[in-house]
Amino acid sequence: MTAFLTNEATQSQFLPPADSRTRVSQFMRQLQDEICQGLEQLDGTGTFKEDSWDRPEGGGGRSRVIREGGVFEQGGVNFSEVWGSHLPPSILTQRPEAAGHQFYATGTSMVLHPRNPYLPTVHLNYRYFEAGPVWWFGGGADLTPYYPFAEDAAHFHRTFQQACDKHHSDYYSVFKPWCDEYFYLKHRQEMRGVGGIFFDYQDGQGQLYRGPDASGPAAGRSNQIGTLAPRGWEELFAFVVDCGQAFLPAYGPIVERRRSLECGERERNFQLYRRGRYVEFNLVYDRGTIFGLQTNGRTESILMSLPPLVRWEYGYQPEPNTPEAELYERFLKPQDWANWTPAG
Amino acid sequence: MTAFLTNEATQSQFLPPADSRTRVSQFMRQLQDEICQGLEQLDGTGTFKEDSWDRPEGGGGRSRVIREGGVFEQGGVNFSEVWGSHLPPSILTQRPEAAGHQFYATGTSMVLHPRNPYLPTVHLNYRYFEAGPVWWFGGGADLTPYYPFAEDAAHFHRTFQQACDKHHSDYYSVFKPWCDEYFYLKHRQEMRGVGGIFFDYQDGQGQLYRGPDASGPAAGRSNQIGTLAPRGWEELFAFVVDCGQAFLPAYGPIVERRRSLECGERERNFQLYRRGRYVEFNLVYDRGTIFGLQTNGRTESILMSLPPLVRWEYGYQPEPNTPEAELYERFLKPQDWANWTPAG
Repeated sequence: MTAFLTNEATQSQFLPPADSRTRVSQFMRQLQDEICQGLEQLDGTGTFKEDSWDRPEGGGGRSRVIREGGVFEQGGVNFSEVWGSHLPPSILTQRPEAAGHQFYATGTSMVLHPRNPYLPTVHLNYRYFEAGPVWWFGGGADLTPYYPFAEDAAHFHRTFQQACDKHHSDYYSVFKPWCDEYFYLKHRQEMRGVGGIFFDYQDGQGQLYRGPDASGPAAGRSNQIGTLAPRGWEELFAFVVDCGQAFLPAYGPIVERRRSLECGERERNFQLYRRGRYVEFNLVYDRGTIFGLQTNGRTESILMSLPPLVRWEYGYQPEPNTPEAELYERFLKPQDWANWTPAG
Repeated sequence: MTAFLTNEATQSQFLPPADSRTRVSQFMRQLQDEICQGLEQLDGTGTFKEDSWDRPEGGGGRSRVIREGGVFEQGGVNFSEVWGSHLPPSILTQRPEAAGHQFYATGTSMVLHPRNPYLPTVHLNYRYFEAGPVWWFGGGADLTPYYPFAEDAAHFHRTFQQACDKHHSDYYSVFKPWCDEYFYLKHRQEMRGVGGIFFDYQDGQGQLYRGPDASGPAAGRSNQIGTLAPRGWEELFAFVVDCGQAFLPAYGPIVERRRSLECGERERNFQLYRRGRYVEFNLVYDRGTIFGLQTNGRTESILMSLPPLVRWEYGYQPEPNTPEAELYERFLKPQDWANWTPAG
């Protein structure tokens, strides 16, 4: 990791500071606080209930859930800070330098399921790891609409593009397709939604890796999807802070725009049906969920992401020339949303 | 496989006959027919709709679905007969002798989700494989009640115990705990339901293996859970036929007993909540489902097993001294249902 460092001054800029854990976990807590506060304001009537929990092997967290609110049928925002004697094999494959070392991890994650089918489900997760000689940041945010509003997809993407551009002109062009590739349901040949940004293993070395389980558009391609100039810990942390704080400006205006649109049973039925895809993705593919369930994580906090009510229907196909068909044909495929403009 | 065979006459009794594939697939088709017919009679108003499908790599099947019936909110009975150039790695680990050989597989599977919460969800699957020098039968049936009726669990178990006892006095005592171990949700530390029977890799050699992913009560124990005297193909096929035909007598009387019981919102809510466990099991643990989804199986047929409507609720706990609590405390743990007797 330090091969390119030439002197002490440069090195101090690249390595984590002595108080790295405190600073990141403080930020993750603060992000949970800010998001919960912002969401309560958006919701109008619902409030978050908190459960604090300890992890027997080391650390703990606070889970916050909002239910039956004015906007949110269910939503969870989870903060955790954990440590232990060794990382699981799935992570060690990606970061073999961490083998034999204790680890520290902290992060905030969130999934919101609004009641109104015109409001998209949305997910956010930012995390930080240290293990022996290695450290890295990961995370992102992605939007899963039920009905096709291009304006909403464009706004969401542009907000995160701006957060990325503040830090590196290549970030958005690498992290946007990474998100498209990660949130992909291979067995449906569908994206989970319109994406956003996603990144993992950002350790400042300039190598950008996709995960080992790349499927869909990325299947069979090299695991390395790009190279950036080396960046330091401070720079990456500042980037993650800005991404985290871009969430409310990215999602809030969409809620305001769509919250009062009236809808009927058809839209509700389609929303419940599409929520099934969220369940399928999280239980079949999502690294965090599967890892958590298989390693005695706190099940209720891990599965907070699952929707409150879900429908499956054998052989469903949207009728041609309907909004539901447009979702499938245009919104569940990778699109250049940041450069979308209204037609005409 | 033939180490214990001493002469031609014995051998012919142990090896598959020349028409093994035709005979088993014919039985699997017939089982689908008989079960669908019996279920339509039980249901009263619903009928099965059939989709036939081809598998590009070889073979195909017929999927049958009943929806919004008098008893069944949704149910699917699937027959398939497929072949190809090689088995997937997950199976080759268990049957290395099959490596480098073409395979043939046929089976019937079924999941029923009744509307009335007093009626249990039920699952059945029987399957047969041939690949080069090896062949085997697998399958079973298990019951997932929402409300605790010991009489129903006992009847279901006894019916399959009788089918087992007709063939081998050790079958039930091996295949009953195997079912308890397989249908186990590790992350919940719960059984999926009250079980039934389950077996896999029955090739007549007398070794009884659990799968490689044994968890819960079986975690850390040897993969070999018992030994039976060598049995021949004909004997095993006859056993599978009897197990398949035990399904309607095992489940029908439960439907008749409970179908007219009235229930309210509380019972419906609990049923929808508990259906979430069915989804969690099938998407996180079930070998057939995961294998199918990851190998371009027919997604709609594989996910026919998912319930039509499902609820998740953060932090739910049943109230003490309620039927819901009794389900958790007594029915979601291994019990000797076949020897249950009414108290007093």
